[in-house]
Amino acid sequence: MPTRDAAQRRAEAGSAYDAYLAECPTRQLLDRIADKWVSLAVNALADGPQRYTQLQRRLASVSQKMLTQTLRRLERDGLVSRTVRPAVPVHVEYELTPLGHSLLPVMRAIKTWAEAHMDEVHTARGAYDTSA
Amino acid sequence: MPTRDAAQRRAEAGSAYDAYLAECPTRQLLDRIADKWVSLAVNALADGPQRYTQLQRRLASVSQKMLTQTLRRLERDGLVSRTVRPAVPVHVEYELTPLGHSLLPVMRAIKTWAEAHMDEVHTARGAYDTSA
Repeated sequence: MPTRDAAQRRAEAGSAYDAYLAECPTRQLLDRIADKWVSLAVNALADGPQRYTQLQRRLASVSQKMLTQTLRRLERDGLVSRTVRPAVPVHVEYELTPLGHSLLPVMRAIKTWAEAHMDEVHTARGAYDTSA
Repeated sequence: MPTRDAAQRRAEAGSAYDAYLAECPTRQLLDRIADKWVSLAVNALADGPQRYTQLQRRLASVSQKMLTQTLRRLERDGLVSRTVRPAVPVHVEYELTPLGHSLLPVMRAIKTWAEAHMDEVHTARGAYDTSA
């Protein structure tokens, strides 16, 4: 019975939230942050505020639609702040909030893991495809 | 010039791989591992081998298609091994490989972050929606 398992897990964990549960809001939050563009955007903001165009250049080939949507969601979730600076043309700067900074180590770790283990994954894929 | 920036970043990082680059294979690997179901599946395998049906129960409401696809990709990427045990009906067990274990802390951290910061995100969303 999934429901009983879920209640047990929650009780054991002593936590109000459990992303294993379909109805838990953290399931949706996990879906939001476990995202390639979120990882790259948060990493790109590690060293301080960035303008939209800087982010666009850093996240090579990201579409304007995807970058705008990613930044808007990060802003709504309280991870990124958006500041409009009066200038011609207007400067729009994005910066990690303290909450965003708390996510940074995780986002850094996932990107670093991918870069560090690409060769092993590549080898595994070769072996799998040969045996299949 | 994105290409020059990319080359500079790569040189500075001293790394062969850079997920910021669209053409880098780690961009696609990051996309693969930055995934809600991958995070939940890897976490669910933390304590040892699990049968398909156990995983299905743990990842409440995951569709059979999604779970099968997630596990197959994890197997192909060398993160999970799949063992068929002769029995009636046949038992199929999944287990983290050493490479999968190296990803576990990251997958645990992302799930834990979501569970720990849900309230703050919820508050931020409320504020954003009110001001919008």
